[in-house]
Amino acid sequence: MKAAIGVFDSGVGGLTVLKSLRTAFPQQEFIYLGDTARLPYGTKSADTIRQYSLQNVRFLAHQGVQAVVVACNSASTQITEPEIEGLPVYNVIDPGVQAALETTQNQCIGLLGTRATVESHVYQTRLKKQAASFGKSDVRVFAQACPLFVPLAEEGWTLDPITNLIVYRYLHPLLLEEIDTLIMGCTHYPILRGSIERATGKSVTLVDSGHALAAVLKKDFESGRLKASAEAGLRVLMTDLSSHLQKWAFEILEETSQPIEVVNTT
Amino acid sequence: MKAAIGVFDSGVGGLTVLKSLRTAFPQQEFIYLGDTARLPYGTKSADTIRQYSLQNVRFLAHQGVQAVVVACNSASTQITEPEIEGLPVYNVIDPGVQAALETTQNQCIGLLGTRATVESHVYQTRLKKQAASFGKSDVRVFAQACPLFVPLAEEGWTLDPITNLIVYRYLHPLLLEEIDTLIMGCTHYPILRGSIERATGKSVTLVDSGHALAAVLKKDFESGRLKASAEAGLRVLMTDLSSHLQKWAFEILEETSQPIEVVNTT
Repeated sequence: MKAAIGVFDSGVGGLTVLKSLRTAFPQQEFIYLGDTARLPYGTKSADTIRQYSLQNVRFLAHQGVQAVVVACNSASTQITEPEIEGLPVYNVIDPGVQAALETTQNQCIGLLGTRATVESHVYQTRLKKQAASFGKSDVRVFAQACPLFVPLAEEGWTLDPITNLIVYRYLHPLLLEEIDTLIMGCTHYPILRGSIERATGKSVTLVDSGHALAAVLKKDFESGRLKASAEAGLRVLMTDLSSHLQKWAFEILEETSQPIEVVNTT
Repeated sequence: MKAAIGVFDSGVGGLTVLKSLRTAFPQQEFIYLGDTARLPYGTKSADTIRQYSLQNVRFLAHQGVQAVVVACNSASTQITEPEIEGLPVYNVIDPGVQAALETTQNQCIGLLGTRATVESHVYQTRLKKQAASFGKSDVRVFAQACPLFVPLAEEGWTLDPITNLIVYRYLHPLLLEEIDTLIMGCTHYPILRGSIERATGKSVTLVDSGHALAAVLKKDFESGRLKASAEAGLRVLMTDLSSHLQKWAFEILEETSQPIEVVNTT
């Protein structure tokens, strides 16, 4: 029986999503694929991102997964279909969009993401498109690209004065717009959650895509679209592996004994 | 006659090297290749970096260049031979190493680079190996990886208080060691030169690989190893192109009319 859920990202950031899913479904089997040889996707063109993402979906399909989670916002901008070759596919954008629309009261939503995600306008478009079905037709979206967040997270400068300054610089224009909801539109950003909350204060609710996605999967387990695994398990595959990436993966997973297999997906 | 000099980098950072070379040799023809579809190289394994670099050398050879400049420190760690298939090849590391050894008086040399460059120990090894021939056998090298510098340069936060803080944090341990020479071991770093100089003060001499490389090429033009072009010219090729990369390339080149061709090198 094909029971594992495949999760892919361009690198290790998607491990924050995997972690949310493993916490929500501790008995589930997962296969994680980090396309680290070609990371990051955010700087690449739409066509290249889609081509790489489809290769990842097919590679995971060959590993025998029952569904694929696109745990990468850049890839999720280019993979919008709910199924590929009969396999259920989940992107990280729609759950975040829906959680934000459920949350907002004043209909002012902030969005943080990589330059590619923000410039793709995918969040902005989907928020506006789905706003009516949440009874929030006047929704306004204020987006900010934060290219320094990923390297700050990788440096481990969390709750650091410099990180706080950078977070504040990026968030200041959004706070002036009095957003009440803020989407962390990159899988690395939950690592900086402490500094982000410090800048927003309690008046802004943060939307974490991993949490939002777990809620969507929960419904699909209940409806029978997804099947429970026979037993828990995790395989971590990467297309390239450096000592820094390994260290970084272990830190996010909070586990230093997880084997990481290097694979060729092309 | 094959007269163009090929210059490649994983992205647009190598354009700072190209700019130094065009300033030094205004009558020379150049072909620049940015392997932007696979950028950055710094996070990839040694084998992958070498494989991509050799593809770039061969691609430029097919474009009819007389020599190839590896304008990328990560790639230069893996391409150390002076010739590949009969083509003269120049890396950016050796000129920086030699310039630093010529410059230092107290034999305390600082090195800034990406994590990959610093961890490869290539600068440290070559500095120590060549120290004797400069009569400086007691040379000590203090290296610092600066993963935030490239995104800071790309954000355009030059001479910015936040950049100054980050530069100071990275440089502080090196300044405590009383370095008198500092190698900017990444092609993006000259963009942050103002902030770096602010942190070092006048007691430290900065080594810019592009300038050091131009001095090496000058000797090879004089010796006849390199031939002068019939006329000046520039082709800029990239393996992928986003609007941000184009804007960024134009900023470094200080030229907004340069055509950028998208090519497939694999």
